[in-house]
Amino acid sequence: MVAAHAGRPGEDVSAVSSEHRGIAGPLQVPSRMLMGPGPSNAHPRVLAAQTLPLLGHMHPSFFKIMDEIQGGLRYLFQTSSPYTLCISGTGHAGMEAVIANLLEPGDKILVGNNGIWGERVSDMAARFRAEVVQLRAPAGRTFSTAELKAALTQHRPAVLFLVQGESSTGAHQARARARGALGDGLGEACRAAGTLLVVDAVASLGGVPFLGDEWGVDAAYTGSQKCLSAPPGAAPLFLGERALAKLRGRASKPATYNLDLNLIGDYWGCTFFLMGPSKQFSNMTSGGRWAASLVYVGAIVATLVIAFTVKGIPGGVLVIVMIVLQFIAALWYCATYVPGGPELLAKCFGIKT
Amino acid sequence: MVAAHAGRPGEDVSAVSSEHRGIAGPLQVPSRMLMGPGPSNAHPRVLAAQTLPLLGHMHPSFFKIMDEIQGGLRYLFQTSSPYTLCISGTGHAGMEAVIANLLEPGDKILVGNNGIWGERVSDMAARFRAEVVQLRAPAGRTFSTAELKAALTQHRPAVLFLVQGESSTGAHQARARARGALGDGLGEACRAAGTLLVVDAVASLGGVPFLGDEWGVDAAYTGSQKCLSAPPGAAPLFLGERALAKLRGRASKPATYNLDLNLIGDYWGCTFFLMGPSKQFSNMTSGGRWAASLVYVGAIVATLVIAFTVKGIPGGVLVIVMIVLQFIAALWYCATYVPGGPELLAKCFGIKT
Repeated sequence: MVAAHAGRPGEDVSAVSSEHRGIAGPLQVPSRMLMGPGPSNAHPRVLAAQTLPLLGHMHPSFFKIMDEIQGGLRYLFQTSSPYTLCISGTGHAGMEAVIANLLEPGDKILVGNNGIWGERVSDMAARFRAEVVQLRAPAGRTFSTAELKAALTQHRPAVLFLVQGESSTGAHQARARARGALGDGLGEACRAAGTLLVVDAVASLGGVPFLGDEWGVDAAYTGSQKCLSAPPGAAPLFLGERALAKLRGRASKPATYNLDLNLIGDYWGCTFFLMGPSKQFSNMTSGGRWAASLVYVGAIVATLVIAFTVKGIPGGVLVIVMIVLQFIAALWYCATYVPGGPELLAKCFGIKT
Repeated sequence: MVAAHAGRPGEDVSAVSSEHRGIAGPLQVPSRMLMGPGPSNAHPRVLAAQTLPLLGHMHPSFFKIMDEIQGGLRYLFQTSSPYTLCISGTGHAGMEAVIANLLEPGDKILVGNNGIWGERVSDMAARFRAEVVQLRAPAGRTFSTAELKAALTQHRPAVLFLVQGESSTGAHQARARARGALGDGLGEACRAAGTLLVVDAVASLGGVPFLGDEWGVDAAYTGSQKCLSAPPGAAPLFLGERALAKLRGRASKPATYNLDLNLIGDYWGCTFFLMGPSKQFSNMTSGGRWAASLVYVGAIVATLVIAFTVKGIPGGVLVIVMIVLQFIAALWYCATYVPGGPELLAKCFGIKT
């Protein structure tokens, strides 16, 4: 079966075949109560929000929404990390983003394997040429602080991976002392061993307590389609300071462009120094942030005024004046508008704001 | 600021901090006409469909929708390939899926680079340790058949990559003889050189003619958010027979689990032999497909009848009878219900259906 000519005038294009066109009936989507190890039901408000029109990914209104999402995710993960965002993809994409970016080829990862997600991460980490060491527990069991600490001492891995909610069995790597290790000194032990603590919270975040900073978690990710009651397609994650240092200090690019967390963090404007020009510009020009760009413009104007009023001033001096003024403007901008900026200034320059 | 205790009775969990909770105002989404190199406006019917409830990814009704999508995508790509599906993620995910799966470390890829997408693929392919050779054209220009054929002869790459619609400049690698090479004998030239022809159709598919099979395209991908007028988040793609052979014959697993096209094709039931047990079972039990499972059950019943009625029959013979009956059932199932099944039977066994 053949339909109309497909090209424009002057184009030499064959006709389009309707062989696979088919006649789709109305979309049949029954209502189901979803309680299994797949997506959960989405909240009606989430579904309703999906009828809103699309915006471009560089649109100031869109950046504002991203900022609100970032704040909400910091609350959700109970972290103050500037590097908190979500990526396009399922929970698997969140897992792969963390594994691909925090492991370099040859790095050792210690995987707490008590179900399919430990298996999955072991498979994945091997694809990124990491050395995988598994710590196994029977299905349905979790890991004690003692056995995890012993394994850290024995293996000194670059990364320790744990699943908070193992959806294949329902096992909850919980805070309760009798049953789990998260929050029970494990974060400190990981720091001492030079190990990044990575937690899969896909099936658990929003359903059970998760205290990212207090527990010393270095990276965690989740999916939108579980306790957050949204459709699949977004994977929230955060990287703590040590994970971010590892990401920045990589010797090689991660074996993914799509999930390169340096580039994604740049787009989200997660840190001042990584902030992409578009978001930076938008931050400067949208909402109440005109003030920041006025300070930048002020630095340029002040330099020009000096250039035209002070006679005989050498060009090199002018350039230095300009740099100093812009540096001051940057400090002020950082202190005022950058998430985590005041802490950064306190740490780097001892400036209390 | 500190909110309520986060744990369940008996759990030793700190209180949750409300520091980052914030008070989000109503979601502000202005209406914009999107004509730039980002997403396009979504069709109101698409937005309305997004209010439908979620289904599980193993639900028979969901498989039925996937089958309809597959059919629609075959029409869209103008291909009869059984391996036609979409993946969760943006157009970048589609690009990475094709590049990561069709290149093994050390493979040579010839990239037609006339804008940012050729640059992007070059960066990406290098991350997967491929050898990248660029064929450059000035921004706004496309490649002639003659220069592409010459480059194929010179480099004999494993993959030739072209962008159909280079969104950074608007250049259209079109069929028209004066302006482009797609359809102008390039597919045959790639076959002769042992090269897979991969086409990026993110910004073009649905907007300009694309004839996958007729042009001899071995793999192509697109995004949902351009000419298809849906939100971003799904990347349709297809692999032709030669690309599928390359995928199946890989010496190493691709450096991605999330986008491993063997596993994704398995889930989508793209080929009989790769078909996952869940989809296979669903195909057998949903809709009009009870017939297929009845034939399977019939094979078992027939064997049991023989076992209990024919005296003194050896166990080994029974097993062989069972295998033969199930093989016949499988052939019938393949001929009746598997996309591309009849062609497969004709090719492998010379059976015309």
